[in-house]
Amino acid sequence: MNIKINSNFKNIKETYLFSEIASRVRKYQEENPEKKLIRLGIGDVTLPLPPVVVEAMNKAAHEMGRQETFRGYPPESGHEFLKKAIADHYTVDLKLSEIFVSDGAKSDIGNLVDILGSNEIIIPDPVYPVYVDSNLMNGNKISYISGNSDNGFLPMPDQIKNRTAAVIYLCSPNNPTGAAYDKAQLTKWVEYALGTGSLIIYDSAYEAFITDEDLPHSIYEIEGAKECAIEVCSFSKFAGFTGTRCGWTVVPEDLKADDGTSLNKMWFRRQSTKFNGVSYPVQCAAEAALSREGIRQCMENIAYYQENADMIAAVLKEKGIYYTGGKNSPYIWLKCPGGMDSWAFFDHLLNDAQIVGTPGEGFGEAGEGYFRITAFGTHENTKEACDRLRNLL
Amino acid sequence: MNIKINSNFKNIKETYLFSEIASRVRKYQEENPEKKLIRLGIGDVTLPLPPVVVEAMNKAAHEMGRQETFRGYPPESGHEFLKKAIADHYTVDLKLSEIFVSDGAKSDIGNLVDILGSNEIIIPDPVYPVYVDSNLMNGNKISYISGNSDNGFLPMPDQIKNRTAAVIYLCSPNNPTGAAYDKAQLTKWVEYALGTGSLIIYDSAYEAFITDEDLPHSIYEIEGAKECAIEVCSFSKFAGFTGTRCGWTVVPEDLKADDGTSLNKMWFRRQSTKFNGVSYPVQCAAEAALSREGIRQCMENIAYYQENADMIAAVLKEKGIYYTGGKNSPYIWLKCPGGMDSWAFFDHLLNDAQIVGTPGEGFGEAGEGYFRITAFGTHENTKEACDRLRNLL
Repeated sequence: MNIKINSNFKNIKETYLFSEIASRVRKYQEENPEKKLIRLGIGDVTLPLPPVVVEAMNKAAHEMGRQETFRGYPPESGHEFLKKAIADHYTVDLKLSEIFVSDGAKSDIGNLVDILGSNEIIIPDPVYPVYVDSNLMNGNKISYISGNSDNGFLPMPDQIKNRTAAVIYLCSPNNPTGAAYDKAQLTKWVEYALGTGSLIIYDSAYEAFITDEDLPHSIYEIEGAKECAIEVCSFSKFAGFTGTRCGWTVVPEDLKADDGTSLNKMWFRRQSTKFNGVSYPVQCAAEAALSREGIRQCMENIAYYQENADMIAAVLKEKGIYYTGGKNSPYIWLKCPGGMDSWAFFDHLLNDAQIVGTPGEGFGEAGEGYFRITAFGTHENTKEACDRLRNLL
Repeated sequence: MNIKINSNFKNIKETYLFSEIASRVRKYQEENPEKKLIRLGIGDVTLPLPPVVVEAMNKAAHEMGRQETFRGYPPESGHEFLKKAIADHYTVDLKLSEIFVSDGAKSDIGNLVDILGSNEIIIPDPVYPVYVDSNLMNGNKISYISGNSDNGFLPMPDQIKNRTAAVIYLCSPNNPTGAAYDKAQLTKWVEYALGTGSLIIYDSAYEAFITDEDLPHSIYEIEGAKECAIEVCSFSKFAGFTGTRCGWTVVPEDLKADDGTSLNKMWFRRQSTKFNGVSYPVQCAAEAALSREGIRQCMENIAYYQENADMIAAVLKEKGIYYTGGKNSPYIWLKCPGGMDSWAFFDHLLNDAQIVGTPGEGFGEAGEGYFRITAFGTHENTKEACDRLRNLL
């Protein structure tokens, strides 16, 4: 064909992180078939959907099978009942027209570039790769700001060199580091964005893991955030929806470009042109997750994972190993002991403790020398892994 | 904010088609509360999901609620069981790696621009607005080729002036005209695309309505199409999934840019970066629709709509009114009698027969003087509408 393709795709790096992990694990298991591996690299929930969620989905499926209750095209931005449940879940006031239900946070984060022009992009490192790749696909220039042990893997605006209007991606509690901004830190970010005319794209997909009372669950808890931030959130981690697919994005009506253009209207136009709404049974399931009983059941699952995180964090504390996360997050991000690099520590854990984790280097340059362990395993396996870690470290 | 927004959004026209229809209907109904309106403007299915589909969705929801059968993140391009069911449904050979399951044809059609560069875009008029708007958002230049009574609302390549590589959107059976390309016509399009190095984006969302045996259900029934065409299809019209949300796109591995870049690999990269797969219960429901019993139940619904289309077409034939569609499609596209323009005929039908349809002008300039009636009503209402049309015309 002679048509032009999007040449920006050439600038996206292939990531071999998970295939490299799989290949090293396979080789080890082949050579050591008698050894029992414990996988703590999982970035996916493992507990089943809460009963009220399953029940709501069943009820909706039955409705779809009867003439009187059948539903056709959903509104592109979500059924009102779900938008209302989401708005009620916030401690801040949001209009229903500011909430856009979608098939997941990843889609929204990826698609938000559609409404933006060519801006400087500021992304913390280490990072969830979607922020980077979706911007590279659009030909945008990215500046990284490093997380490290000095800032507790919570990069701050004073690290930004070129202090002009930019699009800034923040994720808190963070994937992969588990670190979470407190109100004072997030206030600095909002002030910076307002001062420079920047836009913050705030990924709060892990907010349900927050247990500390002084940590914000939403950026809109910070004054002024409605004039500078889009928030993307998800049912994936809160309600175990990774395989059920539902999320939402908040685009406040106060969010205006210099010429007065409303980003809310742009995103509505983008979604009503290139998206056709979320499955009705899935929206009913999501609504059920936000009911009083739904929240109780979802938080029971979160507590289960949090106990795993506590166990792992306790070992690291005991051994004096630096880490972030472990609370307010399903992730534990640790400094590889003895100055080992990420992959050396990966091999060490695999060979000498039969534990599989994720080398921090796979999440960006600033992740070198660090390692991610997740809390999505079973209690039994996590406990055994902790015993092994205690012996090894 | 001082950030740059996508200025191409300024070039997208606001469409007031459906709000204008709603407002005229509301006014009429307020002034004539005793009159019974029949709505034949519906572009959405109305029959409930087939029983096997509901059953499969329920079964999957239960699986999601049990530890042993819970599913997390789906593969971004779809579960293999569904890709296999889709491949088996084709009469041509497709590799599973060429099939990308999604939340619907609209998303894929809108998002395909992400992998393309800045090309000339060729779009038939009248047209489904998503082709136009998604390209305008990307800053692309659009050339229209007109449908009219001379070409039976099936524009052909001989209408193209600037005969160089372009991205060409075709929809057959067509929305809104109901016209469908036969093999000879589609062969001309494939030959044109191969000769000029063009890419065809083929929307076959209405293929399940095809009853004529010589009409292709897929562009891949035409030799050479795998080197020049992407096909987008949907469960929306076949299985009544407009509110359930599932579709798929075929990007053949033979589809290569000049420099050898594989469009299949680009689309995989796009989807795995900006999409996270379709809900497991929805994929199970879609698989059930493609089972032997599922197809039987789906085709029963299609036959119901097709009977409506037949009734409407029969009236127009009787009255000697030019139309396209009415078979192989749920749409009937008619020339407004007496040289009326689209909106004048809309008012005439509303005021004098209490029938609501859609003015053709709303689908593009070439739609002026034409009118769309759909077959998604009930038998009873459609029959009554036909009686009224018979008296009126």
